[in-house]
Amino acid sequence: MAFVGKKFPNIAVNAMNEMGDTFKLNVLEEAKKNNKKVLLFWYPKDFTFVCPTELHAFQEALSEFEKRDTIVIGASCDTAEVHFAWLNTEKDNGGIEGVTYPLLADSNRNLANVLGILDLTNETFDEETNTYLYEGDNVTYRATYLIDEEGTVFHESINHMPLGRNVNEYLRLIDAYTHVQKNGEVCPANWEEGKTA
Amino acid sequence: MAFVGKKFPNIAVNAMNEMGDTFKLNVLEEAKKNNKKVLLFWYPKDFTFVCPTELHAFQEALSEFEKRDTIVIGASCDTAEVHFAWLNTEKDNGGIEGVTYPLLADSNRNLANVLGILDLTNETFDEETNTYLYEGDNVTYRATYLIDEEGTVFHESINHMPLGRNVNEYLRLIDAYTHVQKNGEVCPANWEEGKTA
Amino acid sequence: MAFVGKKFPNIAVNAMNEMGDTFKLNVLEEAKKNNKKVLLFWYPKDFTFVCPTELHAFQEALSEFEKRDTIVIGASCDTAEVHFAWLNTEKDNGGIEGVTYPLLADSNRNLANVLGILDLTNETFDEETNTYLYEGDNVTYRATYLIDEEGTVFHESINHMPLGRNVNEYLRLIDAYTHVQKNGEVCPANWEEGKTA
Amino acid sequence: MAFVGKKFPNIAVNAMNEMGDTFKLNVLEEAKKNNKKVLLFWYPKDFTFVCPTELHAFQEALSEFEKRDTIVIGASCDTAEVHFAWLNTEKDNGGIEGVTYPLLADSNRNLANVLGILDLTNETFDEETNTYLYEGDNVTYRATYLIDEEGTVFHESINHMPLGRNVNEYLRLIDAYTHVQKNGEVCPANWEEGKTA
Amino acid sequence: MAFVGKKFPNIAVNAMNEMGDTFKLNVLEEAKKNNKKVLLFWYPKDFTFVCPTELHAFQEALSEFEKRDTIVIGASCDTAEVHFAWLNTEKDNGGIEGVTYPLLADSNRNLANVLGILDLTNETFDEETNTYLYEGDNVTYRATYLIDEEGTVFHESINHMPLGRNVNEYLRLIDAYTHVQKNGEVCPANWEEGKTA
Amino acid sequence: MAFVGKKFPNIAVNAMNEMGDTFKLNVLEEAKKNNKKVLLFWYPKDFTFVCPTELHAFQEALSEFEKRDTIVIGASCDTAEVHFAWLNTEKDNGGIEGVTYPLLADSNRNLANVLGILDLTNETFDEETNTYLYEGDNVTYRATYLIDEEGTVFHESINHMPLGRNVNEYLRLIDAYTHVQKNGEVCPANWEEGKTA
Amino acid sequence: MAFVGKKFPNIAVNAMNEMGDTFKLNVLEEAKKNNKKVLLFWYPKDFTFVCPTELHAFQEALSEFEKRDTIVIGASCDTAEVHFAWLNTEKDNGGIEGVTYPLLADSNRNLANVLGILDLTNETFDEETNTYLYEGDNVTYRATYLIDEEGTVFHESINHMPLGRNVNEYLRLIDAYTHVQKNGEVCPANWEEGKTA
Amino acid sequence: MAFVGKKFPNIAVNAMNEMGDTFKLNVLEEAKKNNKKVLLFWYPKDFTFVCPTELHAFQEALSEFEKRDTIVIGASCDTAEVHFAWLNTEKDNGGIEGVTYPLLADSNRNLANVLGILDLTNETFDEETNTYLYEGDNVTYRATYLIDEEGTVFHESINHMPLGRNVNEYLRLIDAYTHVQKNGEVCPANWEEGKTA
Amino acid sequence: MAFVGKKFPNIAVNAMNEMGDTFKLNVLEEAKKNNKKVLLFWYPKDFTFVCPTELHAFQEALSEFEKRDTIVIGASCDTAEVHFAWLNTEKDNGGIEGVTYPLLADSNRNLANVLGILDLTNETFDEETNTYLYEGDNVTYRATYLIDEEGTVFHESINHMPLGRNVNEYLRLIDAYTHVQKNGEVCPANWEEGKTA
Amino acid sequence: MAFVGKKFPNIAVNAMNEMGDTFKLNVLEEAKKNNKKVLLFWYPKDFTFVCPTELHAFQEALSEFEKRDTIVIGASCDTAEVHFAWLNTEKDNGGIEGVTYPLLADSNRNLANVLGILDLTNETFDEETNTYLYEGDNVTYRATYLIDEEGTVFHESINHMPLGRNVNEYLRLIDAYTHVQKNGEVCPANWEEGKTA
Repeated sequence: MAFVGKKFPNIAVNAMNEMGDTFKLNVLEEAKKNNKKVLLFWYPKDFTFVCPTELHAFQEALSEFEKRDTIVIGASCDTAEVHFAWLNTEKDNGGIEGVTYPLLADSNRNLANVLGILDLTNETFDEETNTYLYEGDNVTYRATYLIDEEGTVFHESINHMPLGRNVNEYLRLIDAYTHVQKNGEVCPANWEEGKTA
Repeated sequence: MAFVGKKFPNIAVNAMNEMGDTFKLNVLEEAKKNNKKVLLFWYPKDFTFVCPTELHAFQEALSEFEKRDTIVIGASCDTAEVHFAWLNTEKDNGGIEGVTYPLLADSNRNLANVLGILDLTNETFDEETNTYLYEGDNVTYRATYLIDEEGTVFHESINHMPLGRNVNEYLRLIDAYTHVQKNGEVCPANWEEGKTA
Repeated sequence: MAFVGKKFPNIAVNAMNEMGDTFKLNVLEEAKKNNKKVLLFWYPKDFTFVCPTELHAFQEALSEFEKRDTIVIGASCDTAEVHFAWLNTEKDNGGIEGVTYPLLADSNRNLANVLGILDLTNETFDEETNTYLYEGDNVTYRATYLIDEEGTVFHESINHMPLGRNVNEYLRLIDAYTHVQKNGEVCPANWEEGKTA
Repeated sequence: MAFVGKKFPNIAVNAMNEMGDTFKLNVLEEAKKNNKKVLLFWYPKDFTFVCPTELHAFQEALSEFEKRDTIVIGASCDTAEVHFAWLNTEKDNGGIEGVTYPLLADSNRNLANVLGILDLTNETFDEETNTYLYEGDNVTYRATYLIDEEGTVFHESINHMPLGRNVNEYLRLIDAYTHVQKNGEVCPANWEEGKTA
Repeated sequence: MAFVGKKFPNIAVNAMNEMGDTFKLNVLEEAKKNNKKVLLFWYPKDFTFVCPTELHAFQEALSEFEKRDTIVIGASCDTAEVHFAWLNTEKDNGGIEGVTYPLLADSNRNLANVLGILDLTNETFDEETNTYLYEGDNVTYRATYLIDEEGTVFHESINHMPLGRNVNEYLRLIDAYTHVQKNGEVCPANWEEGKTA
Repeated sequence: MAFVGKKFPNIAVNAMNEMGDTFKLNVLEEAKKNNKKVLLFWYPKDFTFVCPTELHAFQEALSEFEKRDTIVIGASCDTAEVHFAWLNTEKDNGGIEGVTYPLLADSNRNLANVLGILDLTNETFDEETNTYLYEGDNVTYRATYLIDEEGTVFHESINHMPLGRNVNEYLRLIDAYTHVQKNGEVCPANWEEGKTA
Repeated sequence: MAFVGKKFPNIAVNAMNEMGDTFKLNVLEEAKKNNKKVLLFWYPKDFTFVCPTELHAFQEALSEFEKRDTIVIGASCDTAEVHFAWLNTEKDNGGIEGVTYPLLADSNRNLANVLGILDLTNETFDEETNTYLYEGDNVTYRATYLIDEEGTVFHESINHMPLGRNVNEYLRLIDAYTHVQKNGEVCPANWEEGKTA
Repeated sequence: MAFVGKKFPNIAVNAMNEMGDTFKLNVLEEAKKNNKKVLLFWYPKDFTFVCPTELHAFQEALSEFEKRDTIVIGASCDTAEVHFAWLNTEKDNGGIEGVTYPLLADSNRNLANVLGILDLTNETFDEETNTYLYEGDNVTYRATYLIDEEGTVFHESINHMPLGRNVNEYLRLIDAYTHVQKNGEVCPANWEEGKTA
Repeated sequence: MAFVGKKFPNIAVNAMNEMGDTFKLNVLEEAKKNNKKVLLFWYPKDFTFVCPTELHAFQEALSEFEKRDTIVIGASCDTAEVHFAWLNTEKDNGGIEGVTYPLLADSNRNLANVLGILDLTNETFDEETNTYLYEGDNVTYRATYLIDEEGTVFHESINHMPLGRNVNEYLRLIDAYTHVQKNGEVCPANWEEGKTA
Repeated sequence: MAFVGKKFPNIAVNAMNEMGDTFKLNVLEEAKKNNKKVLLFWYPKDFTFVCPTELHAFQEALSEFEKRDTIVIGASCDTAEVHFAWLNTEKDNGGIEGVTYPLLADSNRNLANVLGILDLTNETFDEETNTYLYEGDNVTYRATYLIDEEGTVFHESINHMPLGRNVNEYLRLIDAYTHVQKNGEVCPANWEEGKTA
């Protein structure tokens, strides 16, 4: 079920920032109260090797997002404690030290479940234990959401586990959408800021 | 419900090629029998203005996709007859003359419905006519699917109506996925062919 | 389920006129607010070859319908954009340039579904995709409705796909019904205006 | 639900011929075993005044239908006994003496119910008698079906009660359909045998 | 389900009288508003041979019923038009000319259905047409009801199709019931007016 | 639901004869195995005053029924013991001494329930006792069934509680039905053996 | 389900007394309005041989029950008319002449059904008649209830059909319960009035 | 639901004998395999004061029961351990030392539940704990069953909590039933062995 | 379902104290109204051999619990009467004389059922008796609950039947929890009062 | 629902050992195939402060468990990657470096869900997102299970979040259970190895 063209789910989730504070973060309200866009990106797990490169890439581009009045939020289903440990691990050790944007700690899967991005495959009913069992780690795919100032999703995408994201493409999409917002025009294919639409 | 990591739906759909032939096209089987990747992109409607720029952009990049053993397929819910009329309309008149890849004509919405990308919003039950009525035009969002040689989806994304797509980003994703296939490595963020991973 | 003797369904549908305006058209209200009869005819698809002859035939007879205070409306499940493209295609190229009555663009099938005139045949449940799949193009048959000034249907008919309609027969039916309305008499078989009932 | 494009219902119904014989008549099998087309027309009631003119009109055109290998069958929900009484009533007394084609006597409404052409309006549940009560006489509308040699319906129409039918229009439709069968061409609007298509 | 001891169903049915007037007749109200008894007899079909003898027999005894303040009403499922045609057919031709009591024309079976006297036997579900089909003509048995001044049924009986009724037995039953009403006594077997109870 | 034209229910019921024997009696089989007709009459209760006159009347006419190869059976919902006590009570004391035909003792109401002739009126659910309570004595109406040699019911009737039956009318009905059986003719109204049909 | 310790069901039942009056009797209210105990005993059928001895035994002990402010009530599912006939039958003829306590005539089984004491065994669904059929006579077991002044049951018992009851045991139980009521003591086994508890 | 006339439930229950052995006891099989009658009596609780008098009373009469080939079994819902403790408590201390017949320890209530003799009153659903809660101690009433050699119940009774049983009455019932078994006669009221039936 | 972190169920249960008083005890309210902690321990059955050692052990440590403002309550599903008998049995005879804390007598299993600690294993539906039968004695496991002053459970555990409990471990857990309450610190593994946390 | 006395659930779960290997571990099979006991302890989250003291305490006592042929397994709902990161974090930094027993990584909660030890409190249905939302972190309580050589649970307990466990108590329980296994005796309260039982 596509979220594009609809409001992002109105759910508050535990989050951790680089100072070690645990707090509740509601993505929809974050966009609206700050009157900013939001880029929310999910990755499968803390302490893996492909993920930190994505987190560092978003950190490096953070000023570009800020120029575009866009808040960056990372997210996984690990706990806030694990996020904090990872934030305190040096980059050379596979850590994400230096990341300053907040990270959702959706350990109860409230938001990931609504978005439908959990890899809970092959549900089977186990008669012995009278329960549904799952294959898959119950962690999220590499899903990305672009949300506008009113909380409406204007882009969503999912990459397969081993594929990293392209930060520039999200900047391009934000620019294009901003162009539409300002000029009331649609943006054709391959549109880029500064190029003639 | 994410399709990434799963097989693309096994459904044959009417299609039209530039010669005016109507034929059945099954995207999953197309990938498997040709042992190629497939890029399938949906656009809302024929004979609108943002859409042709996307169709032309994919046409211009067609040789790049072919180099990567990737089949390009366009798709909307218009009929094959309408596709043919549009294919016969000059670019200057808003047509898509010159497009050589096939176009799905999913007028019965069999495939679009399974993918969940129709803008059939606000279902209401109308007591007077004893039927469910919908707002929305019952056409698709700008959804894009990248499918590998075995029919597995490795990328899906949806752009809001007014946002055109970036053809280069899809080439990058195909390259990155091919890199993973060949080297068994994951591709970090912003990875590009030729750049050091 | 016959609509004859009942009110036409009270549903507003997207429509396109020859000026390129998209607007909402409610057939029932159109009849009542103008205190006129309505002839509504459905054809399967734009940009086919049998259909334009029907559209031109109704156009040629338009003054006859107007004399009888009867509004003519065409309808298919194509989008308004496609209607407009067809209206801008010359007759010699299979277009309907010159048609001045409005065309319903029932792309969400709200009205066609209520009327039961879609060729959605052989519904089958596909376990692989967990969805109902259909044969047939999900377009309408050649159905025709005559509606009186109060919105009551007084004739309905469906021709098989390859059979064109006879415009004069509808003029005869309108005359006969008007005769009944004026004289409170029934019209016997083969009745024609001016001939003795 | 349209019957056009589908087989006519496979149901045997009581019928009466002009000799006073009661027999079972299955319209679908009649078409197939004789390898002929069938025109089946329903009228509301025996012994009314508009109906006999229709029955006489079809009688007068019977040789035209026979030339086109088309069987004519009349039908109402009256009993065979009543049909016979009407067949024995002189034309001047409102009878149908002289009619030689068979008449269905669908008093148990098996066929009329499947076709959905009964005027059983305003079903209400009566608590006092614990039953569904109906307004309307439970007789049929003026419905007409054209069926081809394989039993497929190629035209259906319903006129409101007071409107008589036009026998020539059915001859035209039969000719047009035969033309399609022979030439594999579609018949445009207003097509008539002998006129250029 | 026995109706004896209960009110006759409160349903208005189309009826025809010997003048050719169609009107609504509610048997229950007819009894109550006239403060009279009612004998209602059903026969299967107009224009058959056993039936007219019953209708004539009730006509001949009509003055006896009137003496006993009893209204006689005949009933079948034929239409009012058919009743009128039969009323205009001479006795020698199998008609019922001369009958002056009203005839119910229960063509929608509202009343016959509540009374449970229709010969709709062997209901079978036909998968091909997705409908229930019936054997039997959907006409009534020879059922007779005696109703008192308050609308209560005090006798009901059904004869098999080929068995005519005995008019005198109904006169006897009316007398016996009147005796009970007047004297508050029960009437033993074979009781007859004037004989000692 | 009428039983006329259908087989009598195939149920064995307790019965008592004048010798005091309790035995099982299946009315349907009784008719078939003896190849005789059966007259089965129900009365409400033993030891009441109107009932014995009916039982005596049938006893007096017993030879007439036997001449017509017709078995007479009485029936109520009293027990066999009560029947026997009544059979042993003198006529002058309101008893039925002298009755020689068998009496059904349907105390478990198996047969009366299937026939639908119990006066179990006004079913109400009593919340205090969590049960359905009934008004009425749960005894039968004065119902009469005539059954032919194959077990088919050819007459059924019900008289209100205070109305005794007319034995001669049943003889007439048996004669008429026998006439139909022999001659294959229907019997018109008021038909009587020996009178011209 | 035990009734001991609960209120006796609040249901009024037809009853007959020795004067031949039919009246409604509600056992629960009888106890409460008279502020007396009640002994209610059920027997299977009137006019059998073991039953009258029980009825006579209770009659003989009636003064003992009255001394203990206890009302005796007999009960079966026979009708009031049958009870009256039995009350008028001499003891030597198997009758119960001389019985002066009232007898419930629970012919509609309202009370016996709530108490669960009917021998309706082996319910089977009979497809031929579409009804539930029962073995057993649908009469009651020999059930006995002792009810106190507030309507609470303090003893219930059921004897198999052929076993007569012991009147003295009920007197003992009443005495014991009265002892408990007066002294607030429990009564040990074999307790008897006058013996040391 | 009465058990009289039916087999006693076929359920094995824990039991304790005076030697302190815990074993399974199936009352139905006990009767059948020993070809003896069984008297089974239930009492509410061990270690109360009215109960031991009943247990002692049955012990004292044990030889009388044995003369009549009748096995005596006591029963409560206490555990076997508690029974044993009570069996080891002296009579003067409220114990049942000296009792030699077995005691059912139906702590899981399997049998008491089937018999319907538990005082689990006033079931209420407690929303706070999401469970059904009961008033009452979930112990049994003073129920007594007499079972014959084939396992059929021929007497059942329940006394209210404070009422002790009369051992002699059970001896009388056993004698009466044995008399019926031997002589095939029913036993009238107040019958006693040796007295004339 | 864990109770730790939730309120203890709010249910009043029968209890017995060493004086022989039966009273209602609600564990949750006991904690709250006394502003004390509660240790509630369940054992399977009275009058067994492992159980008394546990009851004596808690009695011996009672002053230690009192020092810690902790109420000790024992519990089983035996009746209050049985508890009293056991309390009056000398220790040397396997009794619990000397125990002064109250014992719950949860004979209706209201509380044990909510806690889910009954050994009602292997529920099977017995068709013969139309009931669910259980294996197991329907008594409780050795479950222990520690409840704080607000009624919140802070420890629960269950030992298998043959395993006695360690009273000191509960004192340690109470001390640790009290430490947490006072100092707002968590207690690490093996924490003991007086040792450095 | 207690697991004591039942088999531990037969479910394989992801696990991590100190070498960084991810493997599947089935606790039930681990016990059976090694013919050893298992101590399984759950803690809420990696990288918190109370938890490592528990993990270190079990590590320090590991040789004691090994002497008793008991396998120690830790468990939380964190991923294997997070476990590995924590295993590589020095004790002084809050890590668990030095832990050598395996850790279950039940991120899909298959096992924790069956055991019922997740703190998923206050399920509420959110209409906006059409999903169930939870309070609580969806992590486990401090639950501990002792499992014998056949996979049967002989102890289970849960401590509230802030309460650390007592490793010695588990050693005592294992010794006691082993004593029962060897000697077939039950272990009374406070039993300890070497002390007299």
